[in-house]
Amino acid sequence: MKIELKKSCGKAMYIQLFEAIVDEICANNLKSGDMLPSRRALAKELKIAQTTVDNAYKMLQDTGYVESIPRQGFVVSFKTNGYSQDIPWETHHPEGFVFSPNGIDFSQINRGQYAKIAKEILYNDSINLFSYVEKGGEFVLRSAISKYLYSFRDIKCSPWQIILGAGAEYLLTAISVLFDDDTKYIMENPTEQHFYKILASYHRKIVTLPLNSGAFDVDELYKSKGDILFIDSSGRFPRGCPLTEDEMQKILYWASGAPNRYIIENGWEAELNDAKKTLYSMDTNNKVIYLGSFSRTLSPALKASYVVLPDELLTLWKKKHVFYYSLLSTLEQHILAEFINKGHYVKHCKKIKKIYKERKDFLREALLKKFGDTIKIPENTGSTYLIVEPEFDVEIIKTMSRANGLKVFSINSYIQGSENNGFVDNKLILGIGELNRNQLAKSVEIMGL
Amino acid sequence: MKIELKKSCGKAMYIQLFEAIVDEICANNLKSGDMLPSRRALAKELKIAQTTVDNAYKMLQDTGYVESIPRQGFVVSFKTNGYSQDIPWETHHPEGFVFSPNGIDFSQINRGQYAKIAKEILYNDSINLFSYVEKGGEFVLRSAISKYLYSFRDIKCSPWQIILGAGAEYLLTAISVLFDDDTKYIMENPTEQHFYKILASYHRKIVTLPLNSGAFDVDELYKSKGDILFIDSSGRFPRGCPLTEDEMQKILYWASGAPNRYIIENGWEAELNDAKKTLYSMDTNNKVIYLGSFSRTLSPALKASYVVLPDELLTLWKKKHVFYYSLLSTLEQHILAEFINKGHYVKHCKKIKKIYKERKDFLREALLKKFGDTIKIPENTGSTYLIVEPEFDVEIIKTMSRANGLKVFSINSYIQGSENNGFVDNKLILGIGELNRNQLAKSVEIMGL
Repeated sequence: MKIELKKSCGKAMYIQLFEAIVDEICANNLKSGDMLPSRRALAKELKIAQTTVDNAYKMLQDTGYVESIPRQGFVVSFKTNGYSQDIPWETHHPEGFVFSPNGIDFSQINRGQYAKIAKEILYNDSINLFSYVEKGGEFVLRSAISKYLYSFRDIKCSPWQIILGAGAEYLLTAISVLFDDDTKYIMENPTEQHFYKILASYHRKIVTLPLNSGAFDVDELYKSKGDILFIDSSGRFPRGCPLTEDEMQKILYWASGAPNRYIIENGWEAELNDAKKTLYSMDTNNKVIYLGSFSRTLSPALKASYVVLPDELLTLWKKKHVFYYSLLSTLEQHILAEFINKGHYVKHCKKIKKIYKERKDFLREALLKKFGDTIKIPENTGSTYLIVEPEFDVEIIKTMSRANGLKVFSINSYIQGSENNGFVDNKLILGIGELNRNQLAKSVEIMGL
Repeated sequence: MKIELKKSCGKAMYIQLFEAIVDEICANNLKSGDMLPSRRALAKELKIAQTTVDNAYKMLQDTGYVESIPRQGFVVSFKTNGYSQDIPWETHHPEGFVFSPNGIDFSQINRGQYAKIAKEILYNDSINLFSYVEKGGEFVLRSAISKYLYSFRDIKCSPWQIILGAGAEYLLTAISVLFDDDTKYIMENPTEQHFYKILASYHRKIVTLPLNSGAFDVDELYKSKGDILFIDSSGRFPRGCPLTEDEMQKILYWASGAPNRYIIENGWEAELNDAKKTLYSMDTNNKVIYLGSFSRTLSPALKASYVVLPDELLTLWKKKHVFYYSLLSTLEQHILAEFINKGHYVKHCKKIKKIYKERKDFLREALLKKFGDTIKIPENTGSTYLIVEPEFDVEIIKTMSRANGLKVFSINSYIQGSENNGFVDNKLILGIGELNRNQLAKSVEIMGL
């Protein structure tokens, strides 16, 4: 431990010592299980009174950084305190390689560009960073998104139809407030579980369409008797294929058939897929809510997402969400607006899409070379993943791979609904976002199949 | 309009023109109701083809920035498009002075300090700003808050008990997910309406304690038959007085009387009040959820808020909120952590508290000087407001003041529940956060009483 205490900095010595030790823990120089020096030894080393050390150690104990073990001393215990080990909630960074279907490559963001824009905003006093905020978000960002959507996604909307949020999941919760409690949400199955679980946690009624890994079956939509279809039109995750124009038209026709029918078009990774059309742009009946996000195209750390509302629902939103606020920091809103307006966002999307495509092609070839006829890899335009159909049981492959330090995922984990427990779709979904070419080669090498 | 089009910048001319006009609108150089130049005139002026102007104007129309008026041309219409005028949802900046009870003085934040910290973080490559985030928030900020709470609020908790959120309202929604749908939330009445309305919008059951502007009546708590008491212990907004230690002990005793009883202690502006004790620090039964925020002490634009959960509820949180994310941008988390760790936050709170106290004293004197015996101003330690009891009807005062360009608020607007419609608590609540000394003097001068 490197600890320096200052006599005349205005802070009591024991607080300085407490903070110094917390800093060592934060910097990972002290790890869970490490013993702190004995109180006497530390007092001697730092030439301070032992009561100072006593007080600091008591604070550490009170705030859960260390535990006192009788006759042994103080041990750093922060991994267990206030945190039940049985629920793995905090993010764990697993050892080895992960074929994460949601993984993306953050290192491709041009941090210099981002920092430069941020600096200009921070030192531009005409931009007010701290005052009360627009509920739907700062106009500058809503306008930037509206221009972007017009030019690159064929979505025509005014900036006032765009409501900024923090996280697509949160926005989905906020959208659900617009509709009656009896409203039935319709989801494909398998589906991205975040969205399913978020709606379920707010006790929304959800019906899933029958398990399906291919074309969209519009008949099932009618049979579902549901009201609001939530659909990832560009990738139909985890299928990796967009809705066809014909399917889109049929879905829009379904929506126009009753006043309480709507479509929530999830465009969370549309920029990474190849879809040209959107349900929103094809709709003529104000039936589509478009949900967009920068979490997968840029970074989830920005928390930037938005919803585009048709006029009627915009009015309803304002009535229901009197105290809604965009929840996105003003600084981040201005940075992102500049990033889009300067054209950096479009360039970034093109760049990562190209990188992901190269990785998918590389992985496909490497897998086929190693496993030959024992696997099938259907064509798909999935954003950051390949679907693999092996001859062998995917659960065995998962277990064997994990023993070699490789984590692989199967489609099974995206199947929702207790009635489908035990159903097995024997396919792997291998994400390439977190693995570069070398890591992909190594992963295929150690993959147990 | 200043419009420059470039021949060889890679963007089509009509898109450049569209963006240039949007920029003029964003910069407020073009206002709602302004006419755009005729297509022919603009084409001539910019020496471009008229179809280029046609295309740009069509885009402006499609995205709601302008409207076409037959035989007149294109008019900037952004205030109405996609935005029902009858619902004043976007933030309006009223003319004149406002005694806003929630107003705070943003100009007191040391922007230089904030910008300097931000810059250091942006250019410190060892801080990962874009990768996947900790669900409960970055450790560095949770640790900074835990140290701060220990040293200045006598709240002892580990960083892992602190869950970061974006906005106290959002966190309250997330807390409500932990409990059964039948759970009854208890609120004081009058109360800060944000929190009431947020719970109501998610269909939570709310019972209010009988209207009360004085001491907390614990008997009513038992009579309410509610489960979870939501209380602003430090200010009891809009009363401006903290719970006494005796009241706190009785409330804690009430909570200990049944397993489903809890207290949500709203510390949203505790730093601005004089309260020394918190329910959280006096509790010995893990019954208190502490809700903290930087929105009123620093700025609502940061969206920074947090909840401190007792162990048992932390476990429940992790089970219920599998897909919860803190929703606070990683950059903002790091900036705020440094701001706290460097001691800036505590200094800032002391500074603004002193400023607000001076303003309240000044306002009290000015009001008494002008209105003498016709008003009473009870002692209170309210964060940013005085309560004024006039002899005359507050509604008349409100109307007369507004005619002079001064907006004043009355306690009536904080009374919840339709059964209390028509009840009148003839008191004004005059906020000083947005008014400096000169503006306060002027406001008292024009106040109609």
